[in-house]
Amino acid sequence: FPSKLPAVGTTIFSVMSALAAEHQAVNLGQGFPDFACDPALIDAVHQAMQAGHNQYPPMPGVPALRQAVSRKIAAQHGRTYHPDSEITITAGATQGILTAILACVHPGDEVIVLDPCYDSYIPNILLAGGVPVRVPLTPGTFRPDFGKISAAITARTRLLIINTPHNPSATVWSAEEMRTLEELLAPTDVLLISDEVYEHMVFDGAEHQSAARFPGLAARAFINSSFGKTFHVTGWKVGSVAAPAALTAEFRKVHQFNVFTVNTPMQHGLANYLADPQRYLGLPAFYQAKRDLFRAGLAGSRLKLMPCTGSFFQCVDISAVSDLSEADFCLWLTREIGVAAIPLSAFYGDGFDQRVVRFCFAKEDATLHAALERLRKL
Amino acid sequence: FPSKLPAVGTTIFSVMSALAAEHQAVNLGQGFPDFACDPALIDAVHQAMQAGHNQYPPMPGVPALRQAVSRKIAAQHGRTYHPDSEITITAGATQGILTAILACVHPGDEVIVLDPCYDSYIPNILLAGGVPVRVPLTPGTFRPDFGKISAAITARTRLLIINTPHNPSATVWSAEEMRTLEELLAPTDVLLISDEVYEHMVFDGAEHQSAARFPGLAARAFINSSFGKTFHVTGWKVGSVAAPAALTAEFRKVHQFNVFTVNTPMQHGLANYLADPQRYLGLPAFYQAKRDLFRAGLAGSRLKLMPCTGSFFQCVDISAVSDLSEADFCLWLTREIGVAAIPLSAFYGDGFDQRVVRFCFAKEDATLHAALERLRKL
Ligand SMILES: CSCCC(=O)C(=O)O
Ligand SMILES: CSCCC(=O)C(=O)O
Repeated sequence: FPSKLPAVGTTIFSVMSALAAEHQAVNLGQGFPDFACDPALIDAVHQAMQAGHNQYPPMPGVPALRQAVSRKIAAQHGRTYHPDSEITITAGATQGILTAILACVHPGDEVIVLDPCYDSYIPNILLAGGVPVRVPLTPGTFRPDFGKISAAITARTRLLIINTPHNPSATVWSAEEMRTLEELLAPTDVLLISDEVYEHMVFDGAEHQSAARFPGLAARAFINSSFGKTFHVTGWKVGSVAAPAALTAEFRKVHQFNVFTVNTPMQHGLANYLADPQRYLGLPAFYQAKRDLFRAGLAGSRLKLMPCTGSFFQCVDISAVSDLSEADFCLWLTREIGVAAIPLSAFYGDGFDQRVVRFCFAKEDATLHAALERLRKL
Repeated sequence: FPSKLPAVGTTIFSVMSALAAEHQAVNLGQGFPDFACDPALIDAVHQAMQAGHNQYPPMPGVPALRQAVSRKIAAQHGRTYHPDSEITITAGATQGILTAILACVHPGDEVIVLDPCYDSYIPNILLAGGVPVRVPLTPGTFRPDFGKISAAITARTRLLIINTPHNPSATVWSAEEMRTLEELLAPTDVLLISDEVYEHMVFDGAEHQSAARFPGLAARAFINSSFGKTFHVTGWKVGSVAAPAALTAEFRKVHQFNVFTVNTPMQHGLANYLADPQRYLGLPAFYQAKRDLFRAGLAGSRLKLMPCTGSFFQCVDISAVSDLSEADFCLWLTREIGVAAIPLSAFYGDGFDQRVVRFCFAKEDATLHAALERLRKL
């Protein structure tokens, strides 16, 4: 039968992780920590299982977790989402994003994505029958180009997807940029998906500007968060979506017929754990130390460091090191040097190659040192 | 914005569970056990978390779990699915079914469902842009009507969805029925989703006839299983899909952009646990005892017992007890008698009301006794 996604292969993250394993390379490709989560979080889940929290939770999620998410957003961004009608627990942010797209994109609707972007967005739009409209971020700086975004909006535009802190470029949208977007969308009915999974990884005093802070954005936004990214448990696959009640109602219609609901004991464990803001307030400093270690290690090398204000990714320009394409460079680096990275071309619709690759620094210091030692050979 | 699923409300299972909680009714509505899972399974997950299995597993699932599923299917049904290319771990069977539908149904494709059916199928088809074609099971017996199925197949038919043991009717397809379907589909390209989540609940010596046993079906089938249903952990949301490599390849293209992957420690725990077939070989007897207890308790009542050969559901004819519609009867029964049930009309596209409601007997004996005491008032 004809493929629904003929252009799609296995995600670059799976490909590079498999290649890294095959060549015993230090895996700085796929974005996941190699360090343990807090044992208190494991205990909380274990207790939930022992207490018998092993059957279906309510479809939108365990109430205590939805309440904890609501309190967290209120404390951080000053907007109150009602836990009953405006917060839904998802099986990770990717599921939340597909579900939001299926819930609002009709066949033929246009969806604007800002290139480079996470590789699930475009196939998600295609599965909904939507038409992806790719607007490039400004080459070099990766800042949003509001003139281009504005020009891309038509009567058929249903949705815009943004992502801050940004994967792969490590940029963080400023409050002014968010306000500019708010004004730009004000006269339109365009909905927004705000992918904020790296919300707790912001550096040098930068602040994460959630869409929740901007009423004109929040009123039209599905805001996606990830407990996996935040608490070093990417394999637990638990996230959340905050959206106004009318949007949440449509979101849940699809959610209930996609996963129906999300792992019960993990939800209970996270609800307990999340009650203490100390669990996440230290994250920026924790990750900044790793970023600084990694940057310091590359400082004297011919891999040119690009700015990194957020996320757990460091981009480097490879043009002084190699003539290979980004993709071939990453294969070569994994096989010959023993360090896996991700080519930025994988995040572009047209495979645009600007000679930049991405390293993940969410790793033990020892892992980063091992990678740096190998990278020094370049 | 216009709804993608205008006809959809909250699933009947959520509605009835909420109503049951509100009225302190014994909840025999939504299908989930009220007894604990095996503590050994909890230990296995706890150990996996402590061993650090908390990051992304490979996209198709933890290899050990895919291998265990492959061995189980081979042992039970004599067909070997390659764990690398033919088995995928899902976030529950519902996610597996939506993903299979999104992976193969193109806009305008027809998908045949057999009424009554699980309430996610139709919205799943609509989200893919498909056209649901409802073919009734034989009224009264709920057996497949192959003449009607055959007549419904057109050049546009992409997919047929079957479910055995069957929710809600508790029928089990015979080997002969499966063979008849195999012959009927032989001259066509129609794909098959076989929803087999109640595979371990078959009674009176009946055998579950998996699509895996019939080469002409297996070659075109996505076979959905549920660890949640099998091991009394419906809230863990882990299932599997077995399908030939070409189908699995398309399935995974969508899966990786829906949930990407499934809870890592649960997968490791289940892989360990599944290694011992004793963990599931006793399930038919375990559930048959509950079925028998429940049926015996209703035997003298005016609720007329219908046959129950599989699943953990018992259907009863209410016509001697009430003139209310099935839906109203279930509301009344929950509020006034204190027992929640599910109206069969919720499983029909047109709300067909044959005066039958469904009870779930996957409950502690004490729960069943409490429900029976209340039901005796009828
Ligand atoms: C879902 S696998 C990829 C993890 C990730 O977000 C990334 O590496 O960009
Ligand atoms: C996903 S909630 C419903 C559980 C179930 O399969 C049923 O009650 O029919």
